[in-house]
Amino acid sequence: MTKFSFQSLKEFTRNVFLAIGCDRDDAELASDVLLSADLRGVDSHGVARLIGYVRLWEGARINGRPEVGVVHETPGTAVVDGDKGLGLVVAPKAMEIAIDKARQVGTGWVAIKNSNHFGIAGYHAMMALEHDMIGIAMTNASPLVAPTFSVERLLGTNPIAVAIPADKEPPFVADFSTTTAANGKLEILQRKQEEAPIGWVQTNEGQASTDPGVLKKGGALLPLGGDRDHGSHKGYCLGSIVDIFSAILSGANYGPWVPPFVSFLPVSDDPVGEGIGHFVGAMRVDAFRPGHEFKQHMDNWIGRFRSAKTVNGQESVYIPGDPERISEEKRKKEGIELLPAVVSDLHSLADKFDLSLPSD
Amino acid sequence: MTKFSFQSLKEFTRNVFLAIGCDRDDAELASDVLLSADLRGVDSHGVARLIGYVRLWEGARINGRPEVGVVHETPGTAVVDGDKGLGLVVAPKAMEIAIDKARQVGTGWVAIKNSNHFGIAGYHAMMALEHDMIGIAMTNASPLVAPTFSVERLLGTNPIAVAIPADKEPPFVADFSTTTAANGKLEILQRKQEEAPIGWVQTNEGQASTDPGVLKKGGALLPLGGDRDHGSHKGYCLGSIVDIFSAILSGANYGPWVPPFVSFLPVSDDPVGEGIGHFVGAMRVDAFRPGHEFKQHMDNWIGRFRSAKTVNGQESVYIPGDPERISEEKRKKEGIELLPAVVSDLHSLADKFDLSLPSD
Repeated sequence: MTKFSFQSLKEFTRNVFLAIGCDRDDAELASDVLLSADLRGVDSHGVARLIGYVRLWEGARINGRPEVGVVHETPGTAVVDGDKGLGLVVAPKAMEIAIDKARQVGTGWVAIKNSNHFGIAGYHAMMALEHDMIGIAMTNASPLVAPTFSVERLLGTNPIAVAIPADKEPPFVADFSTTTAANGKLEILQRKQEEAPIGWVQTNEGQASTDPGVLKKGGALLPLGGDRDHGSHKGYCLGSIVDIFSAILSGANYGPWVPPFVSFLPVSDDPVGEGIGHFVGAMRVDAFRPGHEFKQHMDNWIGRFRSAKTVNGQESVYIPGDPERISEEKRKKEGIELLPAVVSDLHSLADKFDLSLPSD
Repeated sequence: MTKFSFQSLKEFTRNVFLAIGCDRDDAELASDVLLSADLRGVDSHGVARLIGYVRLWEGARINGRPEVGVVHETPGTAVVDGDKGLGLVVAPKAMEIAIDKARQVGTGWVAIKNSNHFGIAGYHAMMALEHDMIGIAMTNASPLVAPTFSVERLLGTNPIAVAIPADKEPPFVADFSTTTAANGKLEILQRKQEEAPIGWVQTNEGQASTDPGVLKKGGALLPLGGDRDHGSHKGYCLGSIVDIFSAILSGANYGPWVPPFVSFLPVSDDPVGEGIGHFVGAMRVDAFRPGHEFKQHMDNWIGRFRSAKTVNGQESVYIPGDPERISEEKRKKEGIELLPAVVSDLHSLADKFDLSLPSD
């Protein structure tokens, strides 16, 4: 593991985005979104993915200088065409539109097509917080998940993030994939040569499996719940709703047609839409009741849950967003540790674009 | 088991609601909502609960003739005060308001306070379908669920329903509690004297349990996922979001303060809001893209998922709403079978209100 300061890693990332044609503002925004994942402890969605974005740009699947625009709107809704831009840039721009609309009519909802991977959903949802709004963000993703009773992979890990402002307490920030476990956790197990719990994955014939490498053998991730007895049909519902809101409302690809993040896998030659899809929303809390009342009750909710009596051996009940916030505070000060494989990818990017990779 | 025709059971239910003071329209609406659960195979939320509503009315916790009104609104949002009315009546009225607002500005969102149990969430969400809108409904409920790492019961089964229109295919209708399994399934196991799968419930000390009767001993239902390794923190997030949207946006009780459905348990003497809360929404699909385009892509989505290759022994991958629709078609024709305990409750209601209970 090599440790980097947040600032140096962010500067490097910004320079890579500049090198693939982003303008200054977009490069700044994209690096802010990407690094927020490393800060918040979602290592699978941070600089570890930087080389993946560059490969998509090399394959002409990402446009470094997109014209992101609204193609349809009503007072409370819009559809945004991402022009094949980085989702890291397209999604926050769409979220700004949702926030503007919420200012006007109470809530704003934007479906986005023709985009790419948008980093962590939580970043976009949290943009609403400073406006005393609830933020919501979701996206579809590469098909790796088998619906209940299916052996075919028809859905992505399709995450949902919801950020809710509080008063003195930190905000409530839920950000989770709609599968039992996301891909990053399988990669960790593979490195450690450990087994996955039953309920995370299945084989290419739909049998329960503990092999964390089973996705490479045609296996699939499982929807939250794991199997029918444990409610996998509910995880399948959630993943489907994310897919439909993100792609059928917007005109993006959905289900098995979603273009894969990894550039070495082919995209469908019979697409049903454009790029991948996201869906974001903002709701003004004072469109429902006075903001201070809402936030004081949120404090009360958070305080009550955090102080709940715990199961033996557990320190406390977490409020959604607690672990990520603690990681962010720590890593901003102490730096971000990266795995050798990730550092090696960054070195190859430094070589490619003639950049220096600082370390501290 | 005794079988009743849908019509006779509905008429009886309507007469019971008339007897507790509902006017004709409300009695008709409430019986329509309640019976839709029996038709759709959600037996735990249908006439089996009728006596429970009557007991709440006897305990002055339900107002048979409420003045349901908007207490705050913007072009796209409203808060509705249910005036202690039947949730079966309050929720559809709030949904009508959401649909009206969606007609005006693209989407409409209504938070409801001072209400009671609203039957199946799916009924309210499905109201949007005939308007070519996506419908969403959720509610908080009696605290029976322990968040991850908690031994205390702080959340309800807090269901979410999302109904999405299609063209030639039947609509997509997801309607599910945010727990691994809902209470009704535990009752079935108790009657059969069978064990619950691990992941459904825990003991009063937070240990995994297979005892379907453990809730009576201070145990708790578990959030979707079951335990931390299987993503219970995600189910906890979902249940929390439903609680906050339903009650903190509206001014209802939340978390452990939610008044229990059963009349023999006391309500909190230190309430944080009024009654229980719901949250409903409607989104016009043509606020995003032309309605026929959207619905044709929904048909394509549904067709692709339903025809997916299945795990050995499974006939097909279900589309959310399939099992309930099949049940509805069958029971409308063939009648509704009720357990002896439910029939006995209906007889006691018939005696109480001097009604006759028809059977076929």
